[in-house]
Amino acid sequence: MATVLGPAGHGKAETRVVRVTRDGATHHLKDLNVSIALAGDLEQTYLTGDNTGVLPTDTMKNTVYAFAKEHGIPSAEAFALRLARHFVTSQPSVRRASVRVEEYAWERITADSRSAARGGAGHSFVRQGRQVRVCRVTDDGQRYQVLSGLSGLTVLNSTDSEFRGYPRDRYTTLAEASDRVLATEVNALWRYGWTGEGDGPEPAWDAVHARATQDLLEAFAETYSHSLQQTLYRMGAQVIENNPSVDEVRLSLPNKHHFLVDLEPFGLKNDNEVYFAADRPYGLIEGTVLREGAEAGIPEE
Amino acid sequence: MATVLGPAGHGKAETRVVRVTRDGATHHLKDLNVSIALAGDLEQTYLTGDNTGVLPTDTMKNTVYAFAKEHGIPSAEAFALRLARHFVTSQPSVRRASVRVEEYAWERITADSRSAARGGAGHSFVRQGRQVRVCRVTDDGQRYQVLSGLSGLTVLNSTDSEFRGYPRDRYTTLAEASDRVLATEVNALWRYGWTGEGDGPEPAWDAVHARATQDLLEAFAETYSHSLQQTLYRMGAQVIENNPSVDEVRLSLPNKHHFLVDLEPFGLKNDNEVYFAADRPYGLIEGTVLREGAEAGIPEE
Amino acid sequence: MATVLGPAGHGKAETRVVRVTRDGATHHLKDLNVSIALAGDLEQTYLTGDNTGVLPTDTMKNTVYAFAKEHGIPSAEAFALRLARHFVTSQPSVRRASVRVEEYAWERITADSRSAARGGAGHSFVRQGRQVRVCRVTDDGQRYQVLSGLSGLTVLNSTDSEFRGYPRDRYTTLAEASDRVLATEVNALWRYGWTGEGDGPEPAWDAVHARATQDLLEAFAETYSHSLQQTLYRMGAQVIENNPSVDEVRLSLPNKHHFLVDLEPFGLKNDNEVYFAADRPYGLIEGTVLREGAEAGIPEE
Amino acid sequence: MATVLGPAGHGKAETRVVRVTRDGATHHLKDLNVSIALAGDLEQTYLTGDNTGVLPTDTMKNTVYAFAKEHGIPSAEAFALRLARHFVTSQPSVRRASVRVEEYAWERITADSRSAARGGAGHSFVRQGRQVRVCRVTDDGQRYQVLSGLSGLTVLNSTDSEFRGYPRDRYTTLAEASDRVLATEVNALWRYGWTGEGDGPEPAWDAVHARATQDLLEAFAETYSHSLQQTLYRMGAQVIENNPSVDEVRLSLPNKHHFLVDLEPFGLKNDNEVYFAADRPYGLIEGTVLREGAEAGIPEE
Repeated sequence: MATVLGPAGHGKAETRVVRVTRDGATHHLKDLNVSIALAGDLEQTYLTGDNTGVLPTDTMKNTVYAFAKEHGIPSAEAFALRLARHFVTSQPSVRRASVRVEEYAWERITADSRSAARGGAGHSFVRQGRQVRVCRVTDDGQRYQVLSGLSGLTVLNSTDSEFRGYPRDRYTTLAEASDRVLATEVNALWRYGWTGEGDGPEPAWDAVHARATQDLLEAFAETYSHSLQQTLYRMGAQVIENNPSVDEVRLSLPNKHHFLVDLEPFGLKNDNEVYFAADRPYGLIEGTVLREGAEAGIPEE
Repeated sequence: MATVLGPAGHGKAETRVVRVTRDGATHHLKDLNVSIALAGDLEQTYLTGDNTGVLPTDTMKNTVYAFAKEHGIPSAEAFALRLARHFVTSQPSVRRASVRVEEYAWERITADSRSAARGGAGHSFVRQGRQVRVCRVTDDGQRYQVLSGLSGLTVLNSTDSEFRGYPRDRYTTLAEASDRVLATEVNALWRYGWTGEGDGPEPAWDAVHARATQDLLEAFAETYSHSLQQTLYRMGAQVIENNPSVDEVRLSLPNKHHFLVDLEPFGLKNDNEVYFAADRPYGLIEGTVLREGAEAGIPEE
Repeated sequence: MATVLGPAGHGKAETRVVRVTRDGATHHLKDLNVSIALAGDLEQTYLTGDNTGVLPTDTMKNTVYAFAKEHGIPSAEAFALRLARHFVTSQPSVRRASVRVEEYAWERITADSRSAARGGAGHSFVRQGRQVRVCRVTDDGQRYQVLSGLSGLTVLNSTDSEFRGYPRDRYTTLAEASDRVLATEVNALWRYGWTGEGDGPEPAWDAVHARATQDLLEAFAETYSHSLQQTLYRMGAQVIENNPSVDEVRLSLPNKHHFLVDLEPFGLKNDNEVYFAADRPYGLIEGTVLREGAEAGIPEE
Repeated sequence: MATVLGPAGHGKAETRVVRVTRDGATHHLKDLNVSIALAGDLEQTYLTGDNTGVLPTDTMKNTVYAFAKEHGIPSAEAFALRLARHFVTSQPSVRRASVRVEEYAWERITADSRSAARGGAGHSFVRQGRQVRVCRVTDDGQRYQVLSGLSGLTVLNSTDSEFRGYPRDRYTTLAEASDRVLATEVNALWRYGWTGEGDGPEPAWDAVHARATQDLLEAFAETYSHSLQQTLYRMGAQVIENNPSVDEVRLSLPNKHHFLVDLEPFGLKNDNEVYFAADRPYGLIEGTVLREGAEAGIPEE
């Protein structure tokens, strides 16, 4: 019975690289988790075991470490762009390269004045845990697609959120809420309009990341919410409004339910004070906000 | 600055339902984790906070539990089909419903003869952990798409695997291997040709699942491997060859590296006996095998 | 201001070793995660940075791999005993060695008759996931303490469980249950009376493990439960009753709550059929069952 | 064959409570995960299923929520003390109560000046992720034992760490390091001398927590390290030196290995710049630092 190969690819996932740059006694730190995926003309590998076009995933890992030394890591995006281009241009069988990066942020340990006099903070770091910075770069040989974003940023509004006016059916038991806790873990990816050197200089990756992160936080905080959907849209729209280089924002927002505990059996009134933070199930709201008239992205792997 | 809404949806993720069916003293158990996602005409919700079309995710959860009572859970697929159809047909704003299920298998606790005499095993179960059964059903109002599969099935060949003949570049250090351990965690989804009642009766979901699982195991065991890619193709092809109702198999296979430990410093020879099982990084081989001439599926959400 | 060193130790955690033994075309597999901890006369290391007594954790890792080659892995317990004794006897500064092992079980991939003819199953394995086998061996230079057990064995009774007659106070809302689901994840450790060669030959580690595991399952299945505490005691007692080499059983049993879903709002009756499997919070029942008159164990690290 | 009950207890684990306190438009947030364990005269429960002394774990959960309303959550420690005392004094069968708390920190979302004018930040929060605050309170009816601490605080020194002068044996391959990366995830618990009202007023839990956390960071940053053991001691000692209310510090420090990548095959020199951050195995250094002459704590459950 005849079968054929459909979409396929191979890569090295989760290469953990830490890069230290020394500026005298002051050190700088980059801490990345890099995943590479390649696709191309590799049908014979699958059908006959011919490996003449299969770049070993071990070599991909080596390339990450060698590039970290040779070129440094100016930013996750710049590093991913260089890696993706390398694989597409150096391997004849590769038609598309995707590079995904997670970056963990570290801040300097700041000592009190007394101990600062003893020096030392220049090489001492504590890992922040508020969110993970992410990026996904695709190079199809013609142009790049760059998505930047973050995951795991958990936010909560303790008021200014309601949920009312929804349809009711036989299975409805939810009571309308005019004042509820709204909490979510922000997973965001924004797509840049820039697709290569022909579009001019690279965007200022770090500056846009900082601005967009702040936009997500502000829009979440300042939107009076009729639904998490509406809040989602405001978050995406504010990123686009304040960042001319961004054409699209993809948001995945789990609704982390906080249920008001019934304290009546204990003779107590729960005036929006005591909540049970539930794990599962959770609502999941996903949506994309686009700059009007922007060009579409290339489909991601 | 103008922004517009792109693809969006909302749903309830990870509703955990356990259904007991009593056949006298013999009980039967179904243990599912159900995730629902709906998409449709909901732009006003995002833009203005109008909730008139937003079926609460809480209602989705209730529907799962009510359907488990009313209709039982004949199989993960049959249950998901019923749920998907319900949301598409009962909610005017819903254009597409997706239902994803994870199913955890339980087996009866078998007692020794001595204790079997005391009875009891009819309602006592132990959870298997070899793999999780999964399915994903999409209903766009016109037809279904049914993907079934499994995740977490970890397999290992201690010989009959090599990796040679690959390209070398400046960053290559990997030595060719003519006898290595090959291990992976199988994540598989197969797509059925059946798209609704017009195609005849539903496939025998459970029987196909058992047959396809065995095919994956056998093809892994019996293929002399020149690469994990080649093994992947054989696994998918055997599922298609042995299961006429299946048109496509999607496989995601992390290469769980087992590195031979260098024992020479201790005056010992490692004759393919002692391995370090590494966590990260790992290779990741992904591919799709299609029945020749089969119709394409609808894009998944 | 004066400070002093209290209890302290160092070790290598989670060395992952896979050992293949070839018996012609039939291979055998052992898959362990080994953690070692040493304690002894190391005060100067903490106070002055003098490392003359600090066996590097890297050397501990090497020893695991070398021993896997030199001595094989007859069982997790035998391997751990050998390692513990090695560190206590070969390192002057070490007063006590603890070795903890997690073992992952693999079974052979069995092919259908058709494919069995093609051979192949002798080196092909699939990982079981029902439970993890564990052991903890301590050697203080005088005697051993051996604890064996398992973790992650999840069991469920769909009837023959009640919970009634408990005290009520101002904060009680729980209704008495005369027929409930009882589910738990068994984490068990049993202590052997054997403490070294002076006590005669080593227990039959594998046989006792199989027998004790079956005892835990049977006692769970066959006990009509008035509480998880009562079930716990029966589980421990049966292990002791059926295994003369075991003096003590330690059980930690999370009560994995399955709540009956209220289907009344949908006009449905839930006759102990549909349950919500909750994540958190969970009850946690812990207890120890001792053979009457058995000697006490040495305190674990 | 006779068996007897050894140490045993029951409790409710991981009750997730979020408490909002409203001070006009400014809200305050406490986010805890509370685990309770009780021990006492409950032999009959295990042996005969008599539940007359078994406080339901459901009631423990209710008590957490009711106390959050009635008494608020001034600090994790104060909340845990009140809960522990409640169970010991109100339940005749309870001889000892242990309460463990994990606390997740949230900070206010700070908007830019433009948006600050629109208000809103008073009820909007983003969860910090740098560490989890923990405490463990035990009440045996006579006195309290209070341990406070943190987990998951990840720190790294990119220089001023060496490891040399250690013993060598047949299995040694580690090269001496005179300049290495030292990284660990700090898990710390410090015990207070205060054991109840007879010792005077409660310590200033929050202030000590902040001071001790800073001490751990500073001591890690400022110690030139000959081993992680030596760094551990300095971390514990500084907490004791700067916090008169603390008598003991328990530290568990995984050595998160950062291996220098060999770049020679690529014609590159790795001048302490590029590291592989490994997952497993890891060193594990544990130790306790005591105030000289301090009274011993009561054994923890």
